[in-house]
Amino acid sequence: MFGDKSRWKVRVRVWIYRDGEKVLGPGRAELLGHIEREGSISAAAKRMAMSYRRAWTLVREMNDRAGEPLVELATGGAGGGGAHLTPRGKEALAQYQRLLTRAARAAQAARHNTRK
Amino acid sequence: MFGDKSRWKVRVRVWIYRDGEKVLGPGRAELLGHIEREGSISAAAKRMAMSYRRAWTLVREMNDRAGEPLVELATGGAGGGGAHLTPRGKEALAQYQRLLTRAARAAQAARHNTRK
Repeated sequence: MFGDKSRWKVRVRVWIYRDGEKVLGPGRAELLGHIEREGSISAAAKRMAMSYRRAWTLVREMNDRAGEPLVELATGGAGGGGAHLTPRGKEALAQYQRLLTRAARAAQAARHNTRK
Repeated sequence: MFGDKSRWKVRVRVWIYRDGEKVLGPGRAELLGHIEREGSISAAAKRMAMSYRRAWTLVREMNDRAGEPLVELATGGAGGGGAHLTPRGKEALAQYQRLLTRAARAAQAARHNTRK
C-alpha cells in the first residue's frame, strides 16, 4: 500500500554496535564525514551545530568502542593541530554508508512487492 | 570491517511517511500489533507502558495520515467497546514488517560484502 512514490516515503536508519555498544549511527557517521572534509573536530562540530565537547565525546567513544581508532588527532602546530580519519575510520564510514544504501534500496524495492 | 557477527551487530529502523507526515515507525507498528492481539487501545497501551492518551493520539494520527483508517473502534457494549485493525491496517502493518525485514536482511548481507 506504500507504492505511490509521490505520496509515500520510506526512511531507513542504521546503527552499528560492537560488543553491545553503539559505534556508528546517523549522527556519528555525519560527524566522521565532516571531520574527513574539515580536518578538525571543532570545524566538524560547527557544521553540525554541535558543541566541541559533544563531538569530542563521540569521537572518543567511537575510538574506544571500534577496537581501534577511527579518528586520529594531529598534535601540536599552530591552532593545536587537526584531526583526520584513520584508514580504519575511512573503511568504517564507507562500510556504514554501504549498509545504509543497501538497506534503503531493499526497503524501496519491497514497497512495490506487495500483494495488492 | 563489521563482519564478525559475534561482536558487531547491525540495527535497522524504518519509518513510513505519507505527504511528509509520519504514518508508521517502530513504536506505531508495535502499537498496531498490540491492538491486533489485545483488541483494545487501552490494553495495547498498557503492554507498552504508554498512556492511553498517547496511544489514542497515535491511533488518530495514523488514521488521519494514512488516507483511510488503520484502526477501527467498536463503539458501545460493556467496557466501552474495543478496537481492531481494519483490512488496510493489517495490510499496512504486514507491509511495514516486510520492508523492515528486507532492509535488515540487506544490511546484514552487505556486512560480508567488503573489500577487506
